[in-house]
Amino acid sequence: MSRPLLQLALDHTDLHHALRDVELLAGHVDIVEAGTILCLNEGLQAVRSLRTHCPDKIIVADWKVADAGEALAQQAFSAGANWMTVICAAPLATVEKAHQAAVQQNGEVQIELFGNWTFDDARAWHSIGIRQAIYHRGRDAQASGQSWGEADLARMKVLSEIGLALSVTGGITPESLTLFRDINVKAFIAGRALTTASQPQQVARAFHQQLTDIWGEY
Amino acid sequence: MSRPLLQLALDHTDLHHALRDVELLAGHVDIVEAGTILCLNEGLQAVRSLRTHCPDKIIVADWKVADAGEALAQQAFSAGANWMTVICAAPLATVEKAHQAAVQQNGEVQIELFGNWTFDDARAWHSIGIRQAIYHRGRDAQASGQSWGEADLARMKVLSEIGLALSVTGGITPESLTLFRDINVKAFIAGRALTTASQPQQVARAFHQQLTDIWGEY
Repeated sequence: MSRPLLQLALDHTDLHHALRDVELLAGHVDIVEAGTILCLNEGLQAVRSLRTHCPDKIIVADWKVADAGEALAQQAFSAGANWMTVICAAPLATVEKAHQAAVQQNGEVQIELFGNWTFDDARAWHSIGIRQAIYHRGRDAQASGQSWGEADLARMKVLSEIGLALSVTGGITPESLTLFRDINVKAFIAGRALTTASQPQQVARAFHQQLTDIWGEY
Repeated sequence: MSRPLLQLALDHTDLHHALRDVELLAGHVDIVEAGTILCLNEGLQAVRSLRTHCPDKIIVADWKVADAGEALAQQAFSAGANWMTVICAAPLATVEKAHQAAVQQNGEVQIELFGNWTFDDARAWHSIGIRQAIYHRGRDAQASGQSWGEADLARMKVLSEIGLALSVTGGITPESLTLFRDINVKAFIAGRALTTASQPQQVARAFHQQLTDIWGEY
């Protein structure tokens, strides 16, 4: 199992504050994500600006696309994104159009798993070429007390077997990484665990230390 | 059954072109929607600008919120939106937080129905206070040949009975309105049917004529 990457999620409401954390943390992560909140506040400029500030990083446009897959994929990838998220509730036609547009620009679509989805959906996504999904413990679900459990891990294993590499998000801390040692994790996504830490770079180093301890070097 | 409203969906990729259509059509519609594409391109400025340009209209932020319901609702309604969309795949906790934040700012949440959702979901949304949903024939589904059919209309009737007023979207034209005469329709959402017409105001008048013919005056 290859070593998971570390993704910084920027869920700031303005670009100015987001870029301050990018300045501090970009050298310590593999992937930088323009979060939904940031994108809805700042528009396409959020993605463009991250591409400019982080020329060597993987940039994610966390747009949770539900429709107009082709148009939105063209915009996200033209603006500099490498990966773009599509919500699991999107019709398969939308996923397919987003994926086709992504491929043309060397990009990738990640399916964001929220609410009602099935393993048959996952197989359908895989069959049209999708190779990534994002497994969530949502911010609101988390706030209402839901935690990572055996049911989550079992579902993640099935998704891995279907052929989807998973990015994992929702209250991820360095200490929690061991939970996922048997899963094909593409990336761990950390937002506030990094950005609200008193020593953000130190937390990033703790993430990498744990990743190396569990999965070995890159 | 009260007369449905007419909603102009702005799915432009830039505010400049969107505002040109607003100039032309705002006087001919009841609701103006900042579409997802516009919002992802222009950010919160899209909603703010529509509020400024259309002080007397209902403004919709079509954000398809999947998480962070409270934060996003506060932003949308503070920027001037009256209604904000939440994707059906969102956890109930997200719907609830968005709804509570909406109520505090005299706003309303509309659940956007895409993909896998159930009538039990609809009842759960209603039980926490949601009164609106958006019934879609998606842009990509439409392009791949799916049309309005009896199955759609039957599902819309059940949703009406559960207590959700529906906004209807996806290839809506004046001629298609009769299909929905037995449904509790809150609004018909027209995007390109209006904005790409050679005589947009004439098409808007044709919509209103049909609405009056079927449902009577306001």
